[in-house]
Amino acid sequence: MRASATTPFQAAPDSLDPTDWNAVRAMGHRMVDDMVDMLTGLREAPVWQPMPAEARQALRGGDLPTGPGDLDAVYREFQALVQPYGSGNIHPRFMGWVQGGGNPVGMLAELLAAATNPNLGGRDHAPIEVERQVIRWAAQMLGFPMDASGVLVTGASMANLIAVLVARAHALGTGVRRSGLHGRPLVAYTSLETHNCVARAMDMAGLGSDALRLIGLDAQHRMDMGALQAALAQDRAAGLQPFLVVGSAGTVDTGAVDDLTALAALARAQGLWFHVDAAYGALAMLSPAQRPLVQGLSEADSVAFDFHKWAQVPYDAGCVVVRDAALHAATFASQPAYLQRSVRGLAGNQPWPTDFGPDLSRGFRALKVWMTLKTYGTDKLGQVVAHNCSLAQQLARLVDAQPQLERLAPVTLNVVCFRVLAQGVDLDALNADIVADVQESGVAVPSTTRIRGVLAIRVALVNHRTRLTDVEMLLAAVLSTARERLASG
Amino acid sequence: MRASATTPFQAAPDSLDPTDWNAVRAMGHRMVDDMVDMLTGLREAPVWQPMPAEARQALRGGDLPTGPGDLDAVYREFQALVQPYGSGNIHPRFMGWVQGGGNPVGMLAELLAAATNPNLGGRDHAPIEVERQVIRWAAQMLGFPMDASGVLVTGASMANLIAVLVARAHALGTGVRRSGLHGRPLVAYTSLETHNCVARAMDMAGLGSDALRLIGLDAQHRMDMGALQAALAQDRAAGLQPFLVVGSAGTVDTGAVDDLTALAALARAQGLWFHVDAAYGALAMLSPAQRPLVQGLSEADSVAFDFHKWAQVPYDAGCVVVRDAALHAATFASQPAYLQRSVRGLAGNQPWPTDFGPDLSRGFRALKVWMTLKTYGTDKLGQVVAHNCSLAQQLARLVDAQPQLERLAPVTLNVVCFRVLAQGVDLDALNADIVADVQESGVAVPSTTRIRGVLAIRVALVNHRTRLTDVEMLLAAVLSTARERLASG
Repeated sequence: MRASATTPFQAAPDSLDPTDWNAVRAMGHRMVDDMVDMLTGLREAPVWQPMPAEARQALRGGDLPTGPGDLDAVYREFQALVQPYGSGNIHPRFMGWVQGGGNPVGMLAELLAAATNPNLGGRDHAPIEVERQVIRWAAQMLGFPMDASGVLVTGASMANLIAVLVARAHALGTGVRRSGLHGRPLVAYTSLETHNCVARAMDMAGLGSDALRLIGLDAQHRMDMGALQAALAQDRAAGLQPFLVVGSAGTVDTGAVDDLTALAALARAQGLWFHVDAAYGALAMLSPAQRPLVQGLSEADSVAFDFHKWAQVPYDAGCVVVRDAALHAATFASQPAYLQRSVRGLAGNQPWPTDFGPDLSRGFRALKVWMTLKTYGTDKLGQVVAHNCSLAQQLARLVDAQPQLERLAPVTLNVVCFRVLAQGVDLDALNADIVADVQESGVAVPSTTRIRGVLAIRVALVNHRTRLTDVEMLLAAVLSTARERLASG
Repeated sequence: MRASATTPFQAAPDSLDPTDWNAVRAMGHRMVDDMVDMLTGLREAPVWQPMPAEARQALRGGDLPTGPGDLDAVYREFQALVQPYGSGNIHPRFMGWVQGGGNPVGMLAELLAAATNPNLGGRDHAPIEVERQVIRWAAQMLGFPMDASGVLVTGASMANLIAVLVARAHALGTGVRRSGLHGRPLVAYTSLETHNCVARAMDMAGLGSDALRLIGLDAQHRMDMGALQAALAQDRAAGLQPFLVVGSAGTVDTGAVDDLTALAALARAQGLWFHVDAAYGALAMLSPAQRPLVQGLSEADSVAFDFHKWAQVPYDAGCVVVRDAALHAATFASQPAYLQRSVRGLAGNQPWPTDFGPDLSRGFRALKVWMTLKTYGTDKLGQVVAHNCSLAQQLARLVDAQPQLERLAPVTLNVVCFRVLAQGVDLDALNADIVADVQESGVAVPSTTRIRGVLAIRVALVNHRTRLTDVEMLLAAVLSTARERLASG
């Protein structure tokens, strides 16, 4: 850090409040201005750049601070060491992973949430009503009944865990909460492309990830319904207890959407809990062009999704919605004496959010969702979804027109997987190098995945700022990098 | 809402960014000023007030918004319907539950975190380094080795779940992640006063809350070591497998601290994982007067605590620290293709935070912790701890001096439990009514719990703004309310 005179923060002798509130006001104004400057200058900045070793070392150095620091110097350290080396997902040419870009209304909402600082675990206060309204809106978006339950969580990983636990209680009864699992042979079903967090949820719930059958894919990368039927029959014949089928609405690898209507019918016929991981795909409900693809969501028993992906709410803001509110509450609620509910006073107003998930301490993430939805409206968010999907189709056409490129998966929503072809080289290594080169150039951020065993360049279009020119710049960067690598190699 | 002309938010046609960034700047400045005004006016405002039915109805009404709204009107709705009816924990006379008051530096940090909007699941960017630094500082605060692992989570409930899962892997091997539990008779031990989230963690992990033995208390409300030894012997004789003992550093009911040094020795001797729920007590490490009470924390295998409680960071900011980083990672890490790590580019820099807990989408909660610690320093936070504990001792003396009051538990840290005595009335009902009356008066917020079967008025001193006069006002409100109730009843 540059050397400069520092003035330690002057806190009041008997609190953490400043002696000079005007300095806090001024700092707040400056930060608002700086953040707006950053956002308006995004397009000209690198998407991502590797941290210089000195910057990394500076962030890693230093003992636990004992004395007061200078807030101005702390902020300058943020500006010098943190802000320039961000993860890039706010940038229009970030296409690496399924991450939203945030939005300025959500940014301001976080200031209000931190200032008012409520704990959303429960009790009778207005922030709880805001979260309930957000959950009702989520139910409405999904086509769920308005008395469905739900809760905001960090992200879809946690939302999927909650759903697996509700499904576990559905299969075994809520007595399992006290008794634990005793070798009950529960098995669940999902596709090979489903996000790994579902396997992690099976692991954490004590059921084991081996009890999650990974069903093969059809040509559209959807769960193969015939293979699913066969697996169910085989497991039942073996004396196992199928209890859960997990569909995907927008897989992370290819953006595939399972045939949710068929899965719903099968689950109903076989008495299985039908959960959908719709981490980003749920928002497709807001776009008339994409809605038919995910329509079957409305028939699920539970849905997990993120507001911080396609709804562009700042991180983190995941959500789970459950059709059977009573079972949902019975899976999580408990009332120790210090959480005693009352009919009046601050301890009233049950059920509380903590009755629907593992968290008791919970921030006011509902506010950034509420303000984002009220300010932009869902039509506008649906337009972002439609635009991203349209860009994906345009990119697919550009890829298909290039003989040097091979597309590796159909484009359902917003993900395009392809690779550079060349003679006599290890294509996996070449394409991995191209992706790292392009990332390091700062021009764009694609990522890699593996499609049927082959390394793919993956382009996931999620950012609301991305335009056709950005997609074209990405493709040009991939092609020129490939040329350079092949010429020099 | 009052009728007024509204101007729908003008978003750019091809993004969620505004057409007029200056309006966003102006709104940000106004919000900063309003929030500072709120915080400087706290002491004169009611701690809490019940929501009027119309306000509640207004927040509950309204379909999912489809069209754009007026940001100014949305903010006015927040000011009219949400801000006045908060949960009260920012107020100096909130003493109901163990909740921090937030701080203005953390408030500003949340603006920066939302603007830069990184996903802290992993990858190579500076926000990851900030979280790692916060984890190292947490290890240093706890007296853990600097190569301990850790991760930030919503709160101690989630941190305790992570610790239970690591302990499960310690007992059964990490193969349990794939195989699931198969009737392995694991049992855990904790005190009757331990927070219910530990039982919830046993439930979610599939072990069942019945497998958590709730050991009785000694006179200081600590886990009775003799009873613990007896329970262990009995379970071993019955062929069960003890695997985990959970100590408490600051119970939620009475602020008791288990004899952590004795628990550490016993756990070591018996080959048990030793975890401590130090949700707020961990911060006592920062106060020379209280540190000896919690010193044994440094000998634990894992510790769960919250930065949003005694460290006054805005919600939510929980933390778990684990001595054995390799086992911690082996309990959570997995590498699907789309999370493939690379040696260079944005997908480098492992291990990632997602390798240490259930979340993949994770906000930048590290920034508010980092800025709070750097700006105030831990000495100042330790002074807040010492001051709260001193106020608790002063309140205990005031209670003891009143013949009409009965103190119900010893005061170890910052919690005082007592009740109003009277002849010929139901004392539980009387005290519950007094607490609700005082809450509704807006003067102060105490809460209730049950101590050895008796309803107690519980005063938990956690807020950095609380002064002796606030504690005196609470006590005066309790006594005058009791007089009124007894005179009229």
